[in-house]
Amino acid sequence: MAGSPRRTAGRRLQLPLLCLLLQGATAILFAVFVRYNHETDAALWHWHNHSNADNEFYFRYPSFQDVHTMIFVGFGFLMVFLQRYGFSSVGFTFLSAAFALQWSTLVQGFFHSFHRGHIHVGVESMINADFCAGAVLISFGAILGKTGPAQLLLMALLEVVLFGLNEFVLLSLLRVKDAGGSMTIHAFGAYFGLVLSRVLYRPQLEKSKHRQGSVYHSDLFAMIGTIFLWIFWPSFNSAPTTLGDGQHRSALNTYYSLTASTLSTFALSALVGRDGRLDMVHIQNAALAGGVVVGTSAEMMLTPFGALVAGFLAGTVSTLGYKFFTPTLESKLKVQDTCGVHNLHGMPGVLGALLGVLVAGLATHEAYGDGLESVFPLLAKGQRSATSQAMHQLFGLFVTLIFASVGGSLGGLLLRLPFLDAPPDSQCYEDQVYWEVPGEHEDLAQGPLRAEELETQA
Amino acid sequence: MAGSPRRTAGRRLQLPLLCLLLQGATAILFAVFVRYNHETDAALWHWHNHSNADNEFYFRYPSFQDVHTMIFVGFGFLMVFLQRYGFSSVGFTFLSAAFALQWSTLVQGFFHSFHRGHIHVGVESMINADFCAGAVLISFGAILGKTGPAQLLLMALLEVVLFGLNEFVLLSLLRVKDAGGSMTIHAFGAYFGLVLSRVLYRPQLEKSKHRQGSVYHSDLFAMIGTIFLWIFWPSFNSAPTTLGDGQHRSALNTYYSLTASTLSTFALSALVGRDGRLDMVHIQNAALAGGVVVGTSAEMMLTPFGALVAGFLAGTVSTLGYKFFTPTLESKLKVQDTCGVHNLHGMPGVLGALLGVLVAGLATHEAYGDGLESVFPLLAKGQRSATSQAMHQLFGLFVTLIFASVGGSLGGLLLRLPFLDAPPDSQCYEDQVYWEVPGEHEDLAQGPLRAEELETQA
Amino acid sequence: MAGSPRRTAGRRLQLPLLCLLLQGATAILFAVFVRYNHETDAALWHWHNHSNADNEFYFRYPSFQDVHTMIFVGFGFLMVFLQRYGFSSVGFTFLSAAFALQWSTLVQGFFHSFHRGHIHVGVESMINADFCAGAVLISFGAILGKTGPAQLLLMALLEVVLFGLNEFVLLSLLRVKDAGGSMTIHAFGAYFGLVLSRVLYRPQLEKSKHRQGSVYHSDLFAMIGTIFLWIFWPSFNSAPTTLGDGQHRSALNTYYSLTASTLSTFALSALVGRDGRLDMVHIQNAALAGGVVVGTSAEMMLTPFGALVAGFLAGTVSTLGYKFFTPTLESKLKVQDTCGVHNLHGMPGVLGALLGVLVAGLATHEAYGDGLESVFPLLAKGQRSATSQAMHQLFGLFVTLIFASVGGSLGGLLLRLPFLDAPPDSQCYEDQVYWEVPGEHEDLAQGPLRAEELETQA
Repeated sequence: MAGSPRRTAGRRLQLPLLCLLLQGATAILFAVFVRYNHETDAALWHWHNHSNADNEFYFRYPSFQDVHTMIFVGFGFLMVFLQRYGFSSVGFTFLSAAFALQWSTLVQGFFHSFHRGHIHVGVESMINADFCAGAVLISFGAILGKTGPAQLLLMALLEVVLFGLNEFVLLSLLRVKDAGGSMTIHAFGAYFGLVLSRVLYRPQLEKSKHRQGSVYHSDLFAMIGTIFLWIFWPSFNSAPTTLGDGQHRSALNTYYSLTASTLSTFALSALVGRDGRLDMVHIQNAALAGGVVVGTSAEMMLTPFGALVAGFLAGTVSTLGYKFFTPTLESKLKVQDTCGVHNLHGMPGVLGALLGVLVAGLATHEAYGDGLESVFPLLAKGQRSATSQAMHQLFGLFVTLIFASVGGSLGGLLLRLPFLDAPPDSQCYEDQVYWEVPGEHEDLAQGPLRAEELETQA
Repeated sequence: MAGSPRRTAGRRLQLPLLCLLLQGATAILFAVFVRYNHETDAALWHWHNHSNADNEFYFRYPSFQDVHTMIFVGFGFLMVFLQRYGFSSVGFTFLSAAFALQWSTLVQGFFHSFHRGHIHVGVESMINADFCAGAVLISFGAILGKTGPAQLLLMALLEVVLFGLNEFVLLSLLRVKDAGGSMTIHAFGAYFGLVLSRVLYRPQLEKSKHRQGSVYHSDLFAMIGTIFLWIFWPSFNSAPTTLGDGQHRSALNTYYSLTASTLSTFALSALVGRDGRLDMVHIQNAALAGGVVVGTSAEMMLTPFGALVAGFLAGTVSTLGYKFFTPTLESKLKVQDTCGVHNLHGMPGVLGALLGVLVAGLATHEAYGDGLESVFPLLAKGQRSATSQAMHQLFGLFVTLIFASVGGSLGGLLLRLPFLDAPPDSQCYEDQVYWEVPGEHEDLAQGPLRAEELETQA
Repeated sequence: MAGSPRRTAGRRLQLPLLCLLLQGATAILFAVFVRYNHETDAALWHWHNHSNADNEFYFRYPSFQDVHTMIFVGFGFLMVFLQRYGFSSVGFTFLSAAFALQWSTLVQGFFHSFHRGHIHVGVESMINADFCAGAVLISFGAILGKTGPAQLLLMALLEVVLFGLNEFVLLSLLRVKDAGGSMTIHAFGAYFGLVLSRVLYRPQLEKSKHRQGSVYHSDLFAMIGTIFLWIFWPSFNSAPTTLGDGQHRSALNTYYSLTASTLSTFALSALVGRDGRLDMVHIQNAALAGGVVVGTSAEMMLTPFGALVAGFLAGTVSTLGYKFFTPTLESKLKVQDTCGVHNLHGMPGVLGALLGVLVAGLATHEAYGDGLESVFPLLAKGQRSATSQAMHQLFGLFVTLIFASVGGSLGGLLLRLPFLDAPPDSQCYEDQVYWEVPGEHEDLAQGPLRAEELETQA
């Protein structure tokens, strides 16, 4: 008992000090390294006689804003389904993504836009940083409710670096295509989080079981997240592709794929449900698998039919995963996956990578015409065959799974540092550990305005 | 009683089988017919030396995303006002709209972009499919709570075909203008749904009366739908118009019209309310009538003043409709209109069509200059007088009402097929019939974290 | 008692009559003065051979829609945190902003786009009107829960005029830069509202204290507002700037600033919280201060590092303001600030103005190159030195505070007119005064569907 006050003081200071330390560090690194690029710098942009309409802002900013909405509204509210963890779900999403945006601007900048000692930023770096934050939030989904905010910031600190490294290996070294990130974002984020969750395994978690479900209104809040993710996923997969037909086709393919995963999710959910009833967990999550599964191939000549088939399969696999695989994952493999990211991001991400292998392997000059240059530049230049590109894609998946597993293990060890403030088993999925929570129904205590009160008013 | 288990099994399988069947059918049709158009196909786009900035994607995709938000977030949450039907409102919106997008891509494609045996798709077909889904959701609003998901899918199957046919007659044969769909979307969807609801009339519906109202938080969820519909309606009316001044003017007119319908709705709601109190039903719905009423004329030279007057009238008519007409509709005409689509889409849609007649009839070369070509091409070419265009517009409304009525009747007969799973009168407006519903307030049962629990944590 | 019925009738009619009167007046003024500008008028646009891609619509409409979302969804839901005032928060936001859009189109039009007897409107006037509505809603935040809708409309009537006048003095006479409105929107709106709240001081307000807090779900609704404001603030600050690098840079700076204010808000909230717990009030509000503080300087060459520092400071000042200053404001200065607009808009707005003074004072030809012309035209032409521009910026802040204070005082006197319907002290923060409110938990009374009911269904 003597130690309690000290631990309380430690807990009290852990989050603030970590926030201040990280913010201070990124600010210094920004001062030293980060500069406006030639489209955001007043002098550089006006150096040549550009037409303002040519500024990349107008080609990518609307998509950026859709992605931004997905990260903060989509992921944030999707996780509000827990009955007593809404403040933390949306709040820690907010905090860890805000940090990830800064940190990944630096990490991705070093890997991708470091010229003459400076990182150059603009709308593309904004999109890429949001993508990286997406991976962090996917991992967050696996450990939701079982970690404190300081732990999440440390996880982001590590994961952003490994994300950047993996992305660099895939996109720049292996020259793999992965615009919507089936590999780099979804599979990476999911397996990073799942391995991390395995390391943090809590055998006594059933002490918090009664808080692990949803209530009626928390499920409706979660549907806000689902629907915003669903509607803007075409922008997610098309935001970083080549301009023109590339963005257009990516958006279109994703749109079709999502409609199919929605239909298969409803079909499968009713099929496996008690008395044919639908399960909100499936609808909130598996219906989105169609966006994940075309993350690699949406910019390719997947065909609308291919998009439908891919989405259909992803919704099916994801729904069945929630029903049958998640319980096994916990009981057999000791992986406690709060949001079921294995079903929404893990398996569909791997499927999406394999679909990318297939569609890349089928690429021909005939199908892409002069557009081959922008989708598969190495094929267009004759430096790679379609089969070779396919093999590179497959190797990219392998690399991603290695990075994710090693990273998740390291992350787990980091988060198990004994002085870090984690909620005890009996208080997981509970906002009150980290938040001032108002009384649930003060209004009921007061009751509606009484008739006599209204009288006096008149 | 002997039949019960069989019916349960039938119910269990009805939705999954229908989803799988429909998805299989559309997938096959996609394989055979649907192809990328010249702006989404890599080879076709790069065939000519286009500037990427010319890709239609950049002119219409931001508007498309706003429309997409309206369909899934707007309509979905608007219908969450029912206290025990939130899962179904947002979930069945999700399901039926997702199917409608695929199906209307095919149907509208056959009517509008079928060339050399193929349907060509791109951002315009995405917008048009969303519009068609909007009409389906309007009809859904009339029968909300009284039909099961399998019935809704069948309704969509039929309605999308009739929507496409009606749209083809109006836009391609009669050469009527209706960019924002006062006729093709709102009037069509509303009267289709109302006639269908008439055929499905339930004399014993008062058995579910206690679930037909809202609760405090369900009304707030519904306001999410309202506000997203309201803010993005300028994009809805401008998404499919001609580029340049056409889109710009449509958005501007809609923006003004909506501000006026909001003011008139608040005025009328307080005027007819008990003790001058405002009614959430009016605010959630009638305030949107300004968007419906300029659906035909927003792209014309309506003038900002004209937009204000139109919006004002629509808000007035709609609010009065909710107060006085909806009860009569049920008691006299046996039309049970759950969401009051007659007030929000029916009457304002007809008003909007008539406004279109008026504004088209007033069109002059002087007012439109060389822009006449893009708004009224037949007038510009001298093939039609303004009066003739007005008469065609009026005839378009008439055709729409015929299609909607016949279609709604057919739809009603289809949905009354005895083996289809519909909720009994006593279980309308109840999620539990189709969904696993979590306990309402498990959290209260558990209570907030107790002081001693927090102690042990410290 | 004899007077009661008359007062009730007065109350009943006050809002409707005012709405109708104001709508009638603006409609007449629209008829006389408002015309399409050369980008929305069919004849004018087609007069010259424009490319449709040059229409300003495509450069500003996506940003406009983000701003529109902030005004109606962001502000509306941010204020839903009160447990019994959600209908009023989102509803009166809707009403007063809808009126403000019309009225400010006229007022700003007279000051800024009045040519040959007409006001010319297009996407820029739409953005500017939304900005003005933003200022009105900020003021609303200070008096939330203590005023009726008729009072709010009168406040908007006055405030829009003073906003337009102040904006005209700053932007057109003093030639001050303030794209994102640190001065014209945030400081003006905040101090207008605070002074007004001072004049309306209610010594007996503690009679409604029990309704002044939040409940669990009302805080989650408020987070919808927060997150939408946060994600779209880059569009807010960039919507009205010069095209090209100006919009691009403004968005980027705002994005960085907001990430930093989020980190500092979490740090400070935990630091000053009981047992290190986070406070939802801080997260919902102070995290947004990073958007306010770069409202003046985001379009300047602030540098990404500068944006981080500014955001960090704003989040810090704002959080500390909520913790320590708001209570003093009420107890010492008799200013009751319901939403703490002094912390979110007042202090960060003043800080933002001062930051603008600093960054303008540091402007050099070297840093801006030929872009100096678009950011500081008077400097580029040699008509002003950087120091002179800085002094003008500072004077602009001074002018704004004068306008806001005088305006708020006048507004307070106007709203104290005795015949205006204001809620009594015991019924502040209560929807039932102005709205039909459904029973809170009718569903509980009915209970979930009983087992036997489900039996009969099978």
